[in-house]
Amino acid sequence: MKKQQNILIIGAGLCGSLLALRLGQRGYNVSVYEMRPDLRKVDINAGRSINLAFSNRGNKAMKLVGIEDKVKTLCIAMNGRMIHDKKGNTFLSNYSGRDHEYINSISRGGLNALLLDEAEKHENVSIYFNKKCKSVDFKKTTALFKDYETKSEFIEDADAIIATDGAGSAMRKSYYLAKKFLFSFSQDYLTHGYKELSILPTQTGGYKTYKNALHIWPRGSFMLIALPNLDGSFTVTLFLSYDEGTYNFDNLTTPEIVSEFFQKEFPDALELMPNLVEDFFNNPTAPLGTVKCSPWHYKGNTLLMGDSAHAIVPFYGQGMNASFEDVVEFDAVLDQNLENWEAVFKAYESTRKKDTDAIADLAIDNFHEMKDHVANPIFQEKRKLEMALEQNFPNEYSSKYSLVTFNEDIGYHEAMTRGRAQDKAILNMIADKEINSNDDLKVILKKVKKATQDILDDDKIAGLK
Amino acid sequence: MKKQQNILIIGAGLCGSLLALRLGQRGYNVSVYEMRPDLRKVDINAGRSINLAFSNRGNKAMKLVGIEDKVKTLCIAMNGRMIHDKKGNTFLSNYSGRDHEYINSISRGGLNALLLDEAEKHENVSIYFNKKCKSVDFKKTTALFKDYETKSEFIEDADAIIATDGAGSAMRKSYYLAKKFLFSFSQDYLTHGYKELSILPTQTGGYKTYKNALHIWPRGSFMLIALPNLDGSFTVTLFLSYDEGTYNFDNLTTPEIVSEFFQKEFPDALELMPNLVEDFFNNPTAPLGTVKCSPWHYKGNTLLMGDSAHAIVPFYGQGMNASFEDVVEFDAVLDQNLENWEAVFKAYESTRKKDTDAIADLAIDNFHEMKDHVANPIFQEKRKLEMALEQNFPNEYSSKYSLVTFNEDIGYHEAMTRGRAQDKAILNMIADKEINSNDDLKVILKKVKKATQDILDDDKIAGLK
Repeated sequence: MKKQQNILIIGAGLCGSLLALRLGQRGYNVSVYEMRPDLRKVDINAGRSINLAFSNRGNKAMKLVGIEDKVKTLCIAMNGRMIHDKKGNTFLSNYSGRDHEYINSISRGGLNALLLDEAEKHENVSIYFNKKCKSVDFKKTTALFKDYETKSEFIEDADAIIATDGAGSAMRKSYYLAKKFLFSFSQDYLTHGYKELSILPTQTGGYKTYKNALHIWPRGSFMLIALPNLDGSFTVTLFLSYDEGTYNFDNLTTPEIVSEFFQKEFPDALELMPNLVEDFFNNPTAPLGTVKCSPWHYKGNTLLMGDSAHAIVPFYGQGMNASFEDVVEFDAVLDQNLENWEAVFKAYESTRKKDTDAIADLAIDNFHEMKDHVANPIFQEKRKLEMALEQNFPNEYSSKYSLVTFNEDIGYHEAMTRGRAQDKAILNMIADKEINSNDDLKVILKKVKKATQDILDDDKIAGLK
Repeated sequence: MKKQQNILIIGAGLCGSLLALRLGQRGYNVSVYEMRPDLRKVDINAGRSINLAFSNRGNKAMKLVGIEDKVKTLCIAMNGRMIHDKKGNTFLSNYSGRDHEYINSISRGGLNALLLDEAEKHENVSIYFNKKCKSVDFKKTTALFKDYETKSEFIEDADAIIATDGAGSAMRKSYYLAKKFLFSFSQDYLTHGYKELSILPTQTGGYKTYKNALHIWPRGSFMLIALPNLDGSFTVTLFLSYDEGTYNFDNLTTPEIVSEFFQKEFPDALELMPNLVEDFFNNPTAPLGTVKCSPWHYKGNTLLMGDSAHAIVPFYGQGMNASFEDVVEFDAVLDQNLENWEAVFKAYESTRKKDTDAIADLAIDNFHEMKDHVANPIFQEKRKLEMALEQNFPNEYSSKYSLVTFNEDIGYHEAMTRGRAQDKAILNMIADKEINSNDDLKVILKKVKKATQDILDDDKIAGLK
C-alpha cells in the first residue's frame, strides 16, 4: 500500500490520538476530527473519569511511539489494594509478589494532552476540534460532521476511516442502523451505576491517606474506591445499585441520607471527605456498560477501534490499556505489508477480537471480586499463597491478575483461560484441604501446576475451549 | 387485580395466539393485532420455517389450555436423528433410551390456525389482522399501528401491552431507541445462514425416505437436515457459511455449482430432490441470530414475550417450545395473585430470564454438535453409552438432550448446568479410558454420577455457577 494514503480518524481521545501519532510516524496523511474542544485549552473533565489505571500493556504502546519516559512523569505507582473494613482497619494486598510489578494512577487529561502534542509534531497529522461526527457512509467511505463553531455540516472522505469515538460511537451506530450487513452487537448494563467523588489534598498539598495504593472499601453488594492524583487529591468512585439494597442511587436523595450511608458504611472515608455532600449532588450518576460487536470493519473502508469496538467496565483497570494495545496490534498487522486495507482490517480483527472479548468478561468478574471476594477468607488465603508463589518462583508463577496486567506479551484470552483454571485449581485445593500454607512451597507449586493443567485438559476434551 | 382488564397483544403468531387463548380463558379482555393477513384464509408461508420441532415443554402448554389431543393429530413422531454419510450410508441415533421419549415435526401454519380458532372461541378475545405495530409508547401504554388495508394509522391503549411480535419486535425497538432506561440488548449472528428446500412426496403421496426421524447430513462446517410433513414431503434446510469454505452462499450462484455441491456432499439427498435447483434459487437465504435483552418489561405497562424477548437459533428444536413455556410460566405467576402488573412482570422475568438465556446458549452448542460432533467417534461412543444408561436406568439417568427436551419440569438453566457437567464427565472418562462399553452398566452409572457431581462442586467452589 502507498504510504501517502489519507486516513480519517474520528475522535481524538486516548486511542484516537495514539493512533494518529503512530500512523503519522508511519507516514500516512492523517486527519483527526474530535467533537470536544481542545482539552489543552479548555477544562472539560466533567462526566468522565479523571484518572485511570495504567499498566504494562499501555506502556508497551508508549514504548512503540517512543514516549515511555514522558509518560512516566505523569504516573503514581499503586503497589496494591489497600482494603478498608467498616471499622477503618486497613490492610495492603499487593498486586504481585514481584516488586517491579505494580500499576499506576494517571491523569486522563495529562496523558491525552501529551499524545495530542506528540501527534501534532508530525506535519502529516492534522487535528480538528469541535467537529462532531453524526454518521458514516461506510459504503462511500465518507463521514458527516457538524461543526460546533460554525453550526454547519460538512462531509469528509478518505481512503480509510478509523473510528475511535468511544462507547457511544457514531460509526458503530451507522453500522447498526443501516442494516446493510449482519452486524452482531451487544450492550450490557450492570445493575450498578457509579458516581465520582473526591478526597481533597491537605492544606499543604499532601495526601490525606496512603498515596501508593488503590484504596477499596468492599461491602459485598457495593463498594467505594480511590485513586491518587499528582496534586495530592484522590478521585473517589462509588459503585452502587440503582434500585436494590437498603441504600441505592434511587433513594440517596437528601444530604442526610447520603451522610448516614457514608457514616455507616465508610466512616474512615467520610472523615477525609468534608466535601462529600457537595460532590455527591453536583456529580452525575453514570451507567456501567459493556459493548461488544462484530464485524468491526466494513470491507477495506472503515474500522472500529478502542472503546467504539469494545467498551468494558472499569474493574480490571484495563480499558485504556486495551485500547492502547489495539494500536500495538494494528501496527503489527501493518508490518505484514498485506495487499490492501480490507486484508489489514480482517487480519487485525481476527487476531484481536478474542482478546477484547476476554478482557470484557474479566472486567465483569473483577467487579464481583473487588466488591465481594477480596473480603472473603478463602479468597484471601488464595491471594496470600499466590503472593508467596510469585515471590519465591518469580519466573515460574503468575496469578491471573499478573497474567492480565503485567504480562503484555500474552493475549488477554490466554491470560483469562490460564488464569481462571489456576483460580479454580487453587480455590478447590484450599477448600478440599489438599494444600495449606504450611506446606513446602515447591510442593504447592507443583500441585497447582498439575491441577491447572488437568482443568485445561478436561475442558478441552469436553470441547469447552 | 380485576379480571376485566384490557390486555393488548402485539402479534398473533404461535406465542401471541397461545397467550391470547390463555388470557381469554382467565377472563381478561384481550385484543390481538397481527401485521400479517389471517393465515387461515391466505397462504403466507414464504420465508418462515414450514415445520418445527414440538416436544414436551410445548406440549405442557397445550395441556394447560386443554388442546393436547387436537395438537397430536398435527404431529409426526421423530424418534431420533437419521445420520447420512457422504456415501449415502445411514444410521439412526435415537433421541432417548426411553421409548416414550421422542420429538415431533409439526406444521407451523396448522398449529397457529388451531390456536387462533381456539382463542377466538372466547367472546372476550378479538384478533385483528393486517395491522402492523410501528412503535410502542411504553410510558403511556399505547401502541401505534398501521392498517395495511385502509393505509391509515391509529393508536390503541390498554391496561397492559404484551408484545409477542417475534425476533424483529417493534416494541423491543422502541425500548432500544427511546433510551429512557438502561436497556441491555444483544443480537448475535452466526457466520452461517440457512435456506429451505424440499423433498416432494412420491406420486402416491408417500415419503421418499424414512418418515419418523430428523434426517441430518453432517459435514463438519455445514449440514443439511430434513423434517417430515403430513403430506408426504420433507422440508429440507441447508445450513452453510455465507463466505467461508470451498462452497458457500456467496459463491453458490449458478445451477451448475449448486448441483456440483450437492452431488459431492449430499448425493443421496440430491437423488430425492429433482427440484433442488428451482428451490435453491426461488427461496431466500436467511440469517441465524440470537437475541437477548433485559429488562423485558417497563414497569407494569409493557412486557416482551416469546421471540421478541429471546430469539434463538433453531438447532435444539426449542424455539417454539420455549415461547410456549413462557406462557406456562407467566400463567403460574398470575396464579400468585400479586398486587399489580409491575409485580407480575417483575416476578415473571426474574424466574424466566435465566432459562431463556440458557436455551439460547444450548442452541448454539447444538449447532456445532449437529454439523460436526455427531460424526465424531468419541461423541458417538458417549451417545451409545447414554442410550444404554437411559434404557437400563430409566428413572435414574437422563442425557443433556433428554433433560432439555423431555424433562419439562426442570428449567432450561438447570438442564444446561447438569447436562454440560454430565457431558464433560463422560467425554473425559471415555478419553481417559476410565470407562468403556464392556464395563458393568451399574458401575458406569455410579462413576458418571460421581464425576458429574465433582464437576458441579468444583465449579461452585470456583464461583463459576
